[in-house]
Amino acid sequence: MKTFRKELWMELPRRRGFVNITPQVERALAESGVREGLCLVNAMHITASVFVNDDERGLHGDFKRFLEKLCPHEPTSQWRHNDTGEDNADAHLKRQLFGREVVAAITEGKLDLGPWEQIFYGEFDGKRRKRVLVKVLGE
Amino acid sequence: MKTFRKELWMELPRRRGFVNITPQVERALAESGVREGLCLVNAMHITASVFVNDDERGLHGDFKRFLEKLCPHEPTSQWRHNDTGEDNADAHLKRQLFGREVVAAITEGKLDLGPWEQIFYGEFDGKRRKRVLVKVLGE
Amino acid sequence: MKTFRKELWMELPRRRGFVNITPQVERALAESGVREGLCLVNAMHITASVFVNDDERGLHGDFKRFLEKLCPHEPTSQWRHNDTGEDNADAHLKRQLFGREVVAAITEGKLDLGPWEQIFYGEFDGKRRKRVLVKVLGE
Repeated sequence: MKTFRKELWMELPRRRGFVNITPQVERALAESGVREGLCLVNAMHITASVFVNDDERGLHGDFKRFLEKLCPHEPTSQWRHNDTGEDNADAHLKRQLFGREVVAAITEGKLDLGPWEQIFYGEFDGKRRKRVLVKVLGE
Repeated sequence: MKTFRKELWMELPRRRGFVNITPQVERALAESGVREGLCLVNAMHITASVFVNDDERGLHGDFKRFLEKLCPHEPTSQWRHNDTGEDNADAHLKRQLFGREVVAAITEGKLDLGPWEQIFYGEFDGKRRKRVLVKVLGE
Repeated sequence: MKTFRKELWMELPRRRGFVNITPQVERALAESGVREGLCLVNAMHITASVFVNDDERGLHGDFKRFLEKLCPHEPTSQWRHNDTGEDNADAHLKRQLFGREVVAAITEGKLDLGPWEQIFYGEFDGKRRKRVLVKVLGE
């Protein structure tokens, strides 16, 4: 049995955005040398998501507008979490809806994804350095 | 360590629906010969979900109405993803809310599920052949 | 390869609430003796969630109000699942949005969590004994 661990660093220039991290996860997998197993990819921060969907700009705009309508940032006073001095309660909620993590199969040394599956980092409270964890387990 | 991989094929006659795939996942697990480990079950398409809930017809209707209210299919022009010529932006969103995958424990050769837990395939853009991946890791 | 299984019992005095179960998961991991691998933590009931977020009381109130607005308990007659004699359709929906499970990496014998990541049990239909499954796989 082999395990492998790598952190990916993210720093988005805006508060919200989606980054396709599939190439970085594939490189981590290649480094691991694992041919068969499971690959966990998770945000290490609670105002960000890792999820699988389509790499299409129009859809990403739809995602942002949808989340903003359900969990608006403004007015920040609507959320009791922001009474602590934070202004990111909406980001915690957006991350709950889009999820923390992806577990992908590893088959013959590759991420075993469907034809349109791409792994994204979803940032909901950016403009600072944050991490994604890749953990590989297999042989 | 053992790994095992199997694809389940789905083809729903309607755009949206839920299929209990627990028996098919159990058969895949039996084929794998794994007695202790983890079983990943994920949609390979980004307009479908795999999730665990109750096999109750009334609840499934509630799920459909709830998702349709939050992420309506019509009018298709409300979503920028549909400017690409697609009409399934709503399906990408519904899948985000219901999730991509389930990881189930394997104990003594069985799926280690609670008394009411059943694994479902959730289709949000059907009428075509789509796949679910089952990947088993353990011994 | 090692595997380890433990059930955590929950009984909340109210219908809805969040419990930080990180210490219990850490104890299960210590019992397992696994140093490198993956740890699955899942609700065994379909009206409860396991998720990772912040241990902050104001945020938990925001979570409850947000879910209640999206999937209201009252009037119970709005959900067809409740025609079966149940009154917990809203709890099935809330659990769908907050998810069933968490998969955490295990590194050097510890849960490999980010600085603010805490694992929660989310109860949406409480006042009775329910279970969370911890399954550890690694070496």
